[in-house]
Amino acid sequence: MDEFARIDQLLKPLTEGAPEALDLLDDAALLPAGGGEVYVVTKDALVEGRHVLAGTPPEILARKALRTNLSDLAAMGSDPAFYLLALALGPEQDDAWLARFARALAEDQKQFGIRLIGGDSVSTTGPVTVSVTAIGRCPKGMALRRGGARAGDQVWVSGTLGDGVLGLEGARGDLADCDMGAVAALVERHNRPEPRLALGRGLRGLAGACMDLSDGIGGDAAKLCRASGVGMELEVARFPLSRAGQAVLARRPDLEAMAWAGGDDYELLFTAAPDLAGEVRALGRRVGLAVTEIGRVVAGETAIFRTPGGGTVALAGWTHA
Amino acid sequence: MDEFARIDQLLKPLTEGAPEALDLLDDAALLPAGGGEVYVVTKDALVEGRHVLAGTPPEILARKALRTNLSDLAAMGSDPAFYLLALALGPEQDDAWLARFARALAEDQKQFGIRLIGGDSVSTTGPVTVSVTAIGRCPKGMALRRGGARAGDQVWVSGTLGDGVLGLEGARGDLADCDMGAVAALVERHNRPEPRLALGRGLRGLAGACMDLSDGIGGDAAKLCRASGVGMELEVARFPLSRAGQAVLARRPDLEAMAWAGGDDYELLFTAAPDLAGEVRALGRRVGLAVTEIGRVVAGETAIFRTPGGGTVALAGWTHA
Repeated sequence: MDEFARIDQLLKPLTEGAPEALDLLDDAALLPAGGGEVYVVTKDALVEGRHVLAGTPPEILARKALRTNLSDLAAMGSDPAFYLLALALGPEQDDAWLARFARALAEDQKQFGIRLIGGDSVSTTGPVTVSVTAIGRCPKGMALRRGGARAGDQVWVSGTLGDGVLGLEGARGDLADCDMGAVAALVERHNRPEPRLALGRGLRGLAGACMDLSDGIGGDAAKLCRASGVGMELEVARFPLSRAGQAVLARRPDLEAMAWAGGDDYELLFTAAPDLAGEVRALGRRVGLAVTEIGRVVAGETAIFRTPGGGTVALAGWTHA
Repeated sequence: MDEFARIDQLLKPLTEGAPEALDLLDDAALLPAGGGEVYVVTKDALVEGRHVLAGTPPEILARKALRTNLSDLAAMGSDPAFYLLALALGPEQDDAWLARFARALAEDQKQFGIRLIGGDSVSTTGPVTVSVTAIGRCPKGMALRRGGARAGDQVWVSGTLGDGVLGLEGARGDLADCDMGAVAALVERHNRPEPRLALGRGLRGLAGACMDLSDGIGGDAAKLCRASGVGMELEVARFPLSRAGQAVLARRPDLEAMAWAGGDDYELLFTAAPDLAGEVRALGRRVGLAVTEIGRVVAGETAIFRTPGGGTVALAGWTHA
């Protein structure tokens, strides 16, 4: 079974239809919080050697573990509040290692307004494994969902695409023939994702559907389509690239498909009615983040990617191994 | 640094004094839930080869991961509601493995009234690692805490002690000279802890302080003392033993210290004013669980364990490696 079938057939029955679980289709669960709010609750795991290279410094692990969860909170349009942390550490992760890990978390906490409230620390014979449970708040009924896309909506994406997976290539030393500054920028992007919290918050009441791009637009767009019961036609030529991404792809055009099918961008993919385009652009300016219209929601079942020549290309989804 | 110092010096500062974190001293965090309730939130991790033996069947892993978290909910006097699940699985954990894991969860969910609302599944090169985040509910102001013990209170424990760690010895094949039926009962106890939810619920408004015994009474009693700013005098001769535990310790008296200092019992350790002893006993009868008075809360800083001869014995706390 693929990841989707495993979730759908083996794990979704365990929700027993609890409305809080949103059928496991969204980036997070929603719990009533009182005071006209809901809690937005998400839980991700990060394994050294899979999501980041083996031997990654504790600061990068800490930031990445926290920020990928913050990205889920952003995707639901919520404000970060609390997190819990479960650490499985080996004998090499001594007090000095944990002190560096904690210091990086302390810095990110201040930046994003989130505080630790619990967790667990255990030892492992395997790679460092970090699980974060992040809890956000959102006004009741305002959380962004994957299921709200309607035919005729425009499809938007924030920031730039492809940087995350190209950064991983760079960190692996596989971009030796490219501009060193560009590679360094991409590696930094891979190591330090930027959760799009201000954008997510601003999209409340504006976006039809929203999700964060953790596994690459190739597979993630299909997930949004599935949750909404729609199709999408996306124009590959409109996909926004960073200057560093452009520089690397100019030199290594063989990596273009990977840039779209690969993950770790943590940008927001969202839909909005065409008459709201001006508001979406104004929001992008207000939060200082590019927003790019990349296609349309159509009747259908999945995302179709159109190339400049008028053909279509399949962009297989990439899953975190 | 020991586990306590790591939490106190490196992780507690990350709470930034958030009242929800309870200074990381309790079994779970408390979040306002509206409707006169709080959410009780706990997160534990379980690593194959550390908390359970390598090659443990998926059913046992599933139950143990869920039930140890349910035990934290019981310790706070809360009712289970929801959980999130993060799985790090290797290539050997195929669809059939995951289906068995999910089936065991489905059974336990029905028994304990808890439903899955989210999570993550990733692959690992290391041992199977399962993190559960469990969320319970409790009337506001009624959650049991570790900090409520007062000098003069009686100290109580539920069920029987030592079975968990003796069961682990049995599973390892280290009790070959003991009665096979007794060993089987202890192994089952290790594999399938019983969260004391009905007792925890009944202790609301009755217990001064409460915690669950995951790391052995030796170290755990000291944690309760620390959170309450008190000492305890506990009578080792009163520690309740199961028939299986008695049979094994009669044959292997060398294991007695390990039985008290070892973990995995998931019984509740709690305190109550002496004039409530009748109510505590009545509660035990009502929920069908032995409750045993094992000593007194005194002025002091930690737990002292008195032996029948009138001496004291040090029972070092055991931490999940």
